[in-house]
Amino acid sequence: MELLKDKIRKEGKALNHEVLKVDSFLNHQIDPVLMKAIGEEFASRFHKEGVTKILTLESSGIAPSVMAGLAMGVPVVFARKQKSLTLKSDMIRARVYSFTKQESNDISVASKYLQPEDKVFIIDDFLANGEAAHGLLSICKQANVKVAGIGIVIEKMFQSGGKKLREAGIRVESLAQIEKLEEGKVTFKEEEYCV
Amino acid sequence: MELLKDKIRKEGKALNHEVLKVDSFLNHQIDPVLMKAIGEEFASRFHKEGVTKILTLESSGIAPSVMAGLAMGVPVVFARKQKSLTLKSDMIRARVYSFTKQESNDISVASKYLQPEDKVFIIDDFLANGEAAHGLLSICKQANVKVAGIGIVIEKMFQSGGKKLREAGIRVESLAQIEKLEEGKVTFKEEEYCV
Repeated sequence: MELLKDKIRKEGKALNHEVLKVDSFLNHQIDPVLMKAIGEEFASRFHKEGVTKILTLESSGIAPSVMAGLAMGVPVVFARKQKSLTLKSDMIRARVYSFTKQESNDISVASKYLQPEDKVFIIDDFLANGEAAHGLLSICKQANVKVAGIGIVIEKMFQSGGKKLREAGIRVESLAQIEKLEEGKVTFKEEEYCV
Repeated sequence: MELLKDKIRKEGKALNHEVLKVDSFLNHQIDPVLMKAIGEEFASRFHKEGVTKILTLESSGIAPSVMAGLAMGVPVVFARKQKSLTLKSDMIRARVYSFTKQESNDISVASKYLQPEDKVFIIDDFLANGEAAHGLLSICKQANVKVAGIGIVIEKMFQSGGKKLREAGIRVESLAQIEKLEEGKVTFKEEEYCV
């Protein structure tokens, strides 16, 4: 998605080989016009999948998900993060380790918002090692719902999350795929198709 | 705002005299179509104010704020919540006590996203005792920005937050004003004007 890649080229900050800061438009300050374009792009890539619900994770997944939900005409559920969660029978939960923050969080969703007839589209801001995606997939599995696929705003291809998910047969669509980060420089994967 | 009040009547759950659960469309599951209408209503009420930026708080403030930002053509900044924050010179912070959760959180915003020339519109999902609003106002004061006012999705009029803010001369616009909660029953304040 060229609009997103242009924004990353202009405003993204590669701090080192692993960390890309995009807090001027995605993670802290949000560009609503870009989010709308991102939501519409997700909708166009998944419009044939019969999606009934979008599942994301607070907080940075919410903006692109709500715009995708608007474009697709489906509700959005965001999983909540907490250091540790008291077990409740009406909540489905999974444990997610964050390499960036070096801590684990429990993520949880009220079971009533994921029904067996749902077909769920998972959206998140970043895909790196795939910890968050696996947590959300675990929640979907526990809820016994179908998963249409995963939509990612920015994928770090040099980390293994995307590869593992695709090898497991899950459809993963990333709007910007980063092949390499160096201090001050972002290299995108070459597009597989012309637009 | 009738659309919102209808949704609260249909799906909101008054658990007792103080707690209204709206997690089927605002706090956990999100209704994107309603959020768009809410964003447009905020935009129409504040369109003469010269707003340059929206400030909200993660997570439930994000969806209505992004839709308002889209309608108003301005970026959104969401303050992050943390149990306690290491002091950093590039972050502005405030302490917010939550009566619901009975805990304090530090909320923080990167100072570069609030510049003295900004005119800030604060948005939040609920207004009860006004703790979050005061935290966001404190951040605006520290950043030396003008505040256009505060937009609230649901105000609990029987708690003192809104009254205090209005007495302090701050414009507060709430899209649904609740006068009274009883188990299973929500009473709205009568509209001051016909629509």
